[in-house]
Amino acid sequence: MNESTLSTRPSPSTRLSGQVRIVGTGLLGGSIALALRSQGVDVVLADASPSSVRLAVDLGAGRAAEEGDRPQLIVVCVPPDVTADTIEAELLRFSDAVVTDVASVKLAPLFELQNRGVDLTRYIGSHPLAGRERGGTISARGDLFLGRPWVICRDEETPGWVLDRVEDLAHDVGALTIEMTPEAHDEAVGLVSHVPQIMASLMAKQLQKASDDAVRLAGQGLRDVTRIAASSPELWIQILSANSEAVVNILERIQDDLAEITQALRNVDAPGSRRAIAREISAGNDGVARLPGKHGQNRRFASLIVLIDDTPGQLARLLTEIGELGINLEDLRLEHAEGAQMGLVEFSVLPEVVDKLTLELEKLGWRIAA
Amino acid sequence: MNESTLSTRPSPSTRLSGQVRIVGTGLLGGSIALALRSQGVDVVLADASPSSVRLAVDLGAGRAAEEGDRPQLIVVCVPPDVTADTIEAELLRFSDAVVTDVASVKLAPLFELQNRGVDLTRYIGSHPLAGRERGGTISARGDLFLGRPWVICRDEETPGWVLDRVEDLAHDVGALTIEMTPEAHDEAVGLVSHVPQIMASLMAKQLQKASDDAVRLAGQGLRDVTRIAASSPELWIQILSANSEAVVNILERIQDDLAEITQALRNVDAPGSRRAIAREISAGNDGVARLPGKHGQNRRFASLIVLIDDTPGQLARLLTEIGELGINLEDLRLEHAEGAQMGLVEFSVLPEVVDKLTLELEKLGWRIAA
Repeated sequence: MNESTLSTRPSPSTRLSGQVRIVGTGLLGGSIALALRSQGVDVVLADASPSSVRLAVDLGAGRAAEEGDRPQLIVVCVPPDVTADTIEAELLRFSDAVVTDVASVKLAPLFELQNRGVDLTRYIGSHPLAGRERGGTISARGDLFLGRPWVICRDEETPGWVLDRVEDLAHDVGALTIEMTPEAHDEAVGLVSHVPQIMASLMAKQLQKASDDAVRLAGQGLRDVTRIAASSPELWIQILSANSEAVVNILERIQDDLAEITQALRNVDAPGSRRAIAREISAGNDGVARLPGKHGQNRRFASLIVLIDDTPGQLARLLTEIGELGINLEDLRLEHAEGAQMGLVEFSVLPEVVDKLTLELEKLGWRIAA
Repeated sequence: MNESTLSTRPSPSTRLSGQVRIVGTGLLGGSIALALRSQGVDVVLADASPSSVRLAVDLGAGRAAEEGDRPQLIVVCVPPDVTADTIEAELLRFSDAVVTDVASVKLAPLFELQNRGVDLTRYIGSHPLAGRERGGTISARGDLFLGRPWVICRDEETPGWVLDRVEDLAHDVGALTIEMTPEAHDEAVGLVSHVPQIMASLMAKQLQKASDDAVRLAGQGLRDVTRIAASSPELWIQILSANSEAVVNILERIQDDLAEITQALRNVDAPGSRRAIAREISAGNDGVARLPGKHGQNRRFASLIVLIDDTPGQLARLLTEIGELGINLEDLRLEHAEGAQMGLVEFSVLPEVVDKLTLELEKLGWRIAA
């Protein structure tokens, strides 16, 4: 780990003082733990799978939970279908700790707990909007929440000290807090997360029976549209089932639009057909324009693409030479140009070193593509 | 430049000998011209817009076309709706030149020319699968086609010398040629390019009326799904209209799937509903797994994850040792696990070597995560 990346953290001083207990050490739990550890917070880890806890400990995410732990804050990071049970159990077991969860749907677990008559004074639901296509402890990373929104769903009864503790958690991992009602939250994630997952899956499904030649023609556009289609069905049944009403409302609108554009394409030369197609495409222009930031780009790093001979020795030599330049790589991707005796290596580096790296690599005879 | 990068070019020596005329100096025409110029080919440029030609000349893409040009090959790079007219005009004007085009749809212009009774002996359609978000001459780049597929649609009557000239063009710009029938091509691009555009646009359209809070929750997943929704309506009316049959066939299948998952979500607890949802999501898993490279999802390769200290030197050493084992990496992805003490390197290798690689790396003391 290098200081330059550390210095990108929004909150320089840690707010949480006491012990934090993470229940569920998968991608989110593991990442929260790593982020808190890097801030020096005392983190204890619990998971139904002991090997998952061991791996998290090996990754530097904290220590295994044990008798006598006195957590100040408990973060429930378990699958949606056991979230309510786990919240109830943790509230009972640790009678003075604040309990929050990171489930991606907020109304369903809340209703379930209310129906059981659980005292929710010390509970406040939250949802960090961060993730990766690959899940599991092994994919956890401490910077997962940097600059990402973290929704906190307080209600009128939530005491200030409870709210503060969850806000401190969000700030300590570098996230930006947003207060929303559970209703508004579920509607919003249906639109920005759950329906996009369905659209990506439906598109990707069409590739199942595609010819090999067709697949060879795939470019970045298709890759981007279908990237999240790699997500776990088990997880998504739970998420979609728990937020079905909000999702169905949006899917019904999309069904209408899809029927309209399909009909227009069936009779391209009929009056109004081309106008109907143009209307859908430019409505898409307006919609995508509402998204903040650059699309599909890492805003914190600059990237550089180098062409290399498609042999492991080449890549090793390139990385050795970059190492000798004392430049740290934040991220690296090798794209194997199928059939070509060549690979494209994409580096992400801190913006301030990209010019130097480009210059030095060109001096060394490497071919820079972009 | 070092020989390793020289040797990366699919065709070591330029194949085209005579003059090449580029009609339409936008992104594709300009990029082809730049690539050919860098190979020392004599390139002449024509465009309906004189200022576009001037800019292309300034960028080093060749010289302006003039009376007395004797092109051996003409590459038509104009918008789809004027492609057929331009091909016909160029065939007439240069009676011994081979004419090709780069339009993203191949059947429609062919039918149009056939219906007009144009002699197509010297014409052969092609389609380089390359592009950028930004269009126009100013976005042109000579490496746009490096390692990218270039579809060539010959038919039975196409003379060998005509085919050769277009293949030479593709090789000289560093592309990989694929022979397909116009029918197979249009079906393939409908699937990997045109329908993804519609799905992205329909999703993005839903963001138009979203609340500001909802938009703030948008993450990389939604950004990726909707990135290409920023494309030009004018261009896409032309493309979709010209390939409507192939596109409609796929859209109808998606309509059925969308109806099924929407119905399942309306009655989540009905028998079979969750199974139906899971079926769509995992069908999407299978589909996206067919895409080569990028996401380490490639079915043709086995993947292996190694934990390394989070320093470039470590990665270089790992790759050097793999090189010494004589094992070729098909794909590589580094996860710079910021905040963790280590990085994850995911390799894709041929399935038959993954066991050997795992064993050897463990012998060498590397930690295999998966």
